[in-house]
Amino acid sequence: MATFKITLAYDGSDFVGWQRQPAGRSVQALVEDALSRIESAPVAVVGAGRTDAGVHALGQVASATLTHPIDAAALRRALNATLPSDVRVRVVEPAASDFNARYAARAKTYRYRIVCSDIISPFDRRFAWHLAEPIDVIAMAEAAARLEGQHDFAAFQSSGSDVATTVRGILRSQLTCSTDVGGGEQIAYDVTGDGFLRHMVRTIVGTLVEVGAGRLAPDGLDGVVASRDRSRAGRTAPAHGLCLVEVTY
Amino acid sequence: MATFKITLAYDGSDFVGWQRQPAGRSVQALVEDALSRIESAPVAVVGAGRTDAGVHALGQVASATLTHPIDAAALRRALNATLPSDVRVRVVEPAASDFNARYAARAKTYRYRIVCSDIISPFDRRFAWHLAEPIDVIAMAEAAARLEGQHDFAAFQSSGSDVATTVRGILRSQLTCSTDVGGGEQIAYDVTGDGFLRHMVRTIVGTLVEVGAGRLAPDGLDGVVASRDRSRAGRTAPAHGLCLVEVTY
Repeated sequence: MATFKITLAYDGSDFVGWQRQPAGRSVQALVEDALSRIESAPVAVVGAGRTDAGVHALGQVASATLTHPIDAAALRRALNATLPSDVRVRVVEPAASDFNARYAARAKTYRYRIVCSDIISPFDRRFAWHLAEPIDVIAMAEAAARLEGQHDFAAFQSSGSDVATTVRGILRSQLTCSTDVGGGEQIAYDVTGDGFLRHMVRTIVGTLVEVGAGRLAPDGLDGVVASRDRSRAGRTAPAHGLCLVEVTY
Repeated sequence: MATFKITLAYDGSDFVGWQRQPAGRSVQALVEDALSRIESAPVAVVGAGRTDAGVHALGQVASATLTHPIDAAALRRALNATLPSDVRVRVVEPAASDFNARYAARAKTYRYRIVCSDIISPFDRRFAWHLAEPIDVIAMAEAAARLEGQHDFAAFQSSGSDVATTVRGILRSQLTCSTDVGGGEQIAYDVTGDGFLRHMVRTIVGTLVEVGAGRLAPDGLDGVVASRDRSRAGRTAPAHGLCLVEVTY
């Protein structure tokens, strides 16, 4: 028996998400099927984050335990030879026998990309939210920074969720901006936290865009957080702008 | 009557190429159909470069003449509203009535991307050639620089081509390299010339890879050029690594 830590990148465009579903192409099912073929027996994998349909990953982490001996490098090669090109195994490492990618995660880092320009490049269209109206990036950056620290994020959780606590610690919440060749603004929102509620990053982004549009003051975000009321936050930003960049253990 | 210069970007992945074909999705046909809808009459467009199936563009240029009055900004908006998201009109400018995007072009700039690493990122797979074996980038850069100047490129032309002369002037032929997060090498070959033969950039790249693999010395490239013999050059590199970056007038 050997347990492995598997770091994966995937283009989420053609997936129903990380998690295996009754129907549709999921990353988990592809990885489990690939491991099961290598092992010649069913293998279950646990993912650090359940990315939604359309969400990308540069550094998703999965754990799996195999019965037959195989070294990490050979396993990585075998997985990449089996998986389709929109999922790649970046790293395979031996892990402690009780390693669980989900419960052992100490922090996760996401990046959300926005292109603010009258048109979006064909090369960005799958990987960034396109906003055609100009927005106030300075106000958005100011609002983003206010989310660092420990807060109750109930207002940013999708309805229907059922978790023990909605308090999460945000280690970094930073919005940066650069101008692209076409004169458009490339906005990146980087957030690192000890955990995230369902749709939390995308709802934060939707709320930051409300700030950028002038419908909410940067310090008005504090009131949204305090309200614990989902209807006070912005819309859920589209999935395809989001990427799970890193999981920290 | 008004003639326009139209600068386009497209993701070539799902196209049979620039040129209208009896069957398949071409960029030219989409642009002509969009203009014909705006004009309510058939409109023909001329493209600066006939990019092959799978080749991308950041700055393809097309010319078209419309009968009904429309200003450049309105035409750009109307085209972007009609075209699918894998083709975007970056700029529309009024042009002289005899402007022809193909014959007026003074130079074209292409970029060819290679990722040299055991695996290629899902985000690069449509836009770069993946080479799994290490290559000598210094030797490739040295060979690339030897192509600057006026040369007979008959050895780099696809068989079956029929052009008056195979002499072309190369203003820039430069290979650069950076290391990506996964330890792979991101190689970019940038070439600007007064004209290119069919498959010329891709065959140059295929030949540079022969140099990188140690099968041809950097100065051996001179002999390949002098031979005018297609069989002495390398294979035609895959289309999806190539991008038409800019057309100069």
